[in-house]
Amino acid sequence: MKERIMELMQEKRFSDARRNVMDLNVVDIAEILEELDRNQAIILFRMLPKDTAVEVFAYLSNEQQLAIIDAITDREIKHIMDELYFDDMIDFLEEMPASIVKKILKNTKEEERILINQFLNYPENSAGSLMTIEYVGLKKEMTLREALDYIKRIALDKETVYTCYVTDANRKLEGIISLRKLVTNNEDKTVGEMMNTDVIYAHTHDDQETIVHLFKKYDLMAIPVVDKEERLTGIITIDDIVDVIEQENTEDFQRMAAMAPSEEEYLETSVFTLAKHRITWLLILMISATFTGNIIRRFEDVLSSVVVLAAFIPMLMDTGGNAGSQSSTLVIRGLALGDIKLEDTLKVLWKELRVSTIVGIALAVINFLRIYYIEKVGMQIAVTVCVTMFVTVVLAKLVGGSLPIAARRMKLDPAIMASPLITTIVDAVALIVYFSMAAWILGI
Amino acid sequence: MKERIMELMQEKRFSDARRNVMDLNVVDIAEILEELDRNQAIILFRMLPKDTAVEVFAYLSNEQQLAIIDAITDREIKHIMDELYFDDMIDFLEEMPASIVKKILKNTKEEERILINQFLNYPENSAGSLMTIEYVGLKKEMTLREALDYIKRIALDKETVYTCYVTDANRKLEGIISLRKLVTNNEDKTVGEMMNTDVIYAHTHDDQETIVHLFKKYDLMAIPVVDKEERLTGIITIDDIVDVIEQENTEDFQRMAAMAPSEEEYLETSVFTLAKHRITWLLILMISATFTGNIIRRFEDVLSSVVVLAAFIPMLMDTGGNAGSQSSTLVIRGLALGDIKLEDTLKVLWKELRVSTIVGIALAVINFLRIYYIEKVGMQIAVTVCVTMFVTVVLAKLVGGSLPIAARRMKLDPAIMASPLITTIVDAVALIVYFSMAAWILGI
Repeated sequence: MKERIMELMQEKRFSDARRNVMDLNVVDIAEILEELDRNQAIILFRMLPKDTAVEVFAYLSNEQQLAIIDAITDREIKHIMDELYFDDMIDFLEEMPASIVKKILKNTKEEERILINQFLNYPENSAGSLMTIEYVGLKKEMTLREALDYIKRIALDKETVYTCYVTDANRKLEGIISLRKLVTNNEDKTVGEMMNTDVIYAHTHDDQETIVHLFKKYDLMAIPVVDKEERLTGIITIDDIVDVIEQENTEDFQRMAAMAPSEEEYLETSVFTLAKHRITWLLILMISATFTGNIIRRFEDVLSSVVVLAAFIPMLMDTGGNAGSQSSTLVIRGLALGDIKLEDTLKVLWKELRVSTIVGIALAVINFLRIYYIEKVGMQIAVTVCVTMFVTVVLAKLVGGSLPIAARRMKLDPAIMASPLITTIVDAVALIVYFSMAAWILGI
Repeated sequence: MKERIMELMQEKRFSDARRNVMDLNVVDIAEILEELDRNQAIILFRMLPKDTAVEVFAYLSNEQQLAIIDAITDREIKHIMDELYFDDMIDFLEEMPASIVKKILKNTKEEERILINQFLNYPENSAGSLMTIEYVGLKKEMTLREALDYIKRIALDKETVYTCYVTDANRKLEGIISLRKLVTNNEDKTVGEMMNTDVIYAHTHDDQETIVHLFKKYDLMAIPVVDKEERLTGIITIDDIVDVIEQENTEDFQRMAAMAPSEEEYLETSVFTLAKHRITWLLILMISATFTGNIIRRFEDVLSSVVVLAAFIPMLMDTGGNAGSQSSTLVIRGLALGDIKLEDTLKVLWKELRVSTIVGIALAVINFLRIYYIEKVGMQIAVTVCVTMFVTVVLAKLVGGSLPIAARRMKLDPAIMASPLITTIVDAVALIVYFSMAAWILGI
């Protein structure tokens, strides 16, 4: 179907294209617009029925949105802005250049302009920056029948009608009531009687991670957000939370691979930005690795008398790094999901000690068999390598298991204590053990 | 509040505890039960009102569920099973030992037993294993009024009433209609007139990753699932999808740190299971690293004439590994989120080539300044180290950028092409470049 519409547009059979497009989901229409060239995209966009156009607009990339805003009239812009859900409008305005924002704000009422500016000022990644103002507000005194009639009149403009929010005269949140309850109970009851007063809610300045945690813990579909005076200012719906979860995970992946986190998609990020995000940590880790180099230089005597020792350095370093990053990854992920808490430090260390003993012995034994019997290296060197292997694995796992928790204790992001940093630390220790052991066993 | 209830239970002031517990959210009650010792947990559980008890049960850990099932009567078990949502019951049964499952199935009607067995047989991680049967089914001929009356009668037993599913006499899915539409439109219209026929749906055997993708793309709250004959068999709701997203991410984190993925929480996994999940990859990578060792042995002559060369091995190896894992992480994540597609291979390589050139030059220059001017190593060695640094970074990033896409092409999970494997590959190449360059520049 998509290919068919693209073809019709190429052949300038616009009304046929329009008819075909009408059967599609708005998400799929947005996808087609992204693939068409700019002029054809604008033609197709302007052919859409007004309401569909607004929905499609919310799913477009910022680039495409900008192109369309540039090409359409002030009146058309005003229509889109009026009909977009408030949170989608804020998301859009946040990404637009200042000149466009000005042009758009010029067309809004003063009251709305103040609200928009307030929302644009919430800190990034705060509850305030995620919420929408389009919720259904009810009063305690209403009967369920009155509430349903009210919802019937206003539902079209609301992002969700499935949970309704009950506030007092000062906009203080008093309770919530689901549409399910409104529909399934006796219509003469009042909202106040039927509402749930044990409400899980958030504050405008809460971090988005806290909000995600609440959604997951309580299986929420939406959460009300209140300001410092406990007045209801908006709600956050689960579709936005799904995006936040993926964004937080992406940031963790990036931090764990020693990069500055970024929200931009890889293919849309410029080469310089990508380089900038990567270079700081590479530099820090490169400089740190020179300490490891210095250890080798300190033991140059040992090395020059038994050069074959150098051949086992990569294996020891890599295995140490891998063993450590296994542990740190599990602990970082456990901390992020809330499965591991600060008070579990000792439990984690005890677990890692036992796991690493099993793993360390297994690796050391297999390694011994291989290098003594297959590579036919001398017994003393084989023992040195294998004892170092064991000590390195145990140490790596203890370091890997404890550093992320230590970071959390110091209010740092545990994700920075991932593979690259652990590897660098473990490398140094592994080499000290290796050469000291060699010097002692080989009597150098 | 939680501490207060724990205290009351210790002091055996059960009715006070019960009164306090009643004000809490079921999730918080489940948390308290997890922290109490077994006997007290069972006492508190049996004091809960029946309906609350069922909801709390769904949030308990498998261990605690098992303890409770062991302690309560067959009649109480039957009540819990009757009232649990079908998907929660299946989740629970999947984790229970066979003897318990038998005991429970004994108490269900034959019809339900057949259904349970069918659900238990869906492959793990398939749409079938995630779905529930408690949806609202409507017919086209119903008026909206009839539909609402019907929902009023049956809503209590349904997991979601916010989307209703319209099927024909053969249970074939014909359309969906939201409760919002039912409530806000003229009650004399029919469901058939108002329903949406452009339905996004899944098949019972679809992989859960596909389902997650559909939810994210179309901002769904629930998705209908049909069998091979296109008959509606169940629905999947977004709260379960949030769990799947986190589970898929956890698996990616684990694979990327060279571990066998596991769904169990870290603290609840036995030491042997943890060791087993880690040892296979550590072994594979340890053996692979011996190839790197062999490269050093091949260049033993070069190394023994200029032992200081060994001092830069850790820095080159670590930087190569880190540079490569930055690229592979971004590409693996991009593939998982659908931002990067198979046909983007060349775009990715071109991008990585440019990024790595910038990063490589920067690192090489800084490194040169440091080792030539501060560490006062000879010019020839400084040049060897820095040229190797540049080549390693470029190579690492090209390898890191392309291997995950190659894995996807071969229908493997891109996540295995992460840091550990990249490091091992890049190490070997870096050392060959390093020693060949040294032999050539130093004329050994």
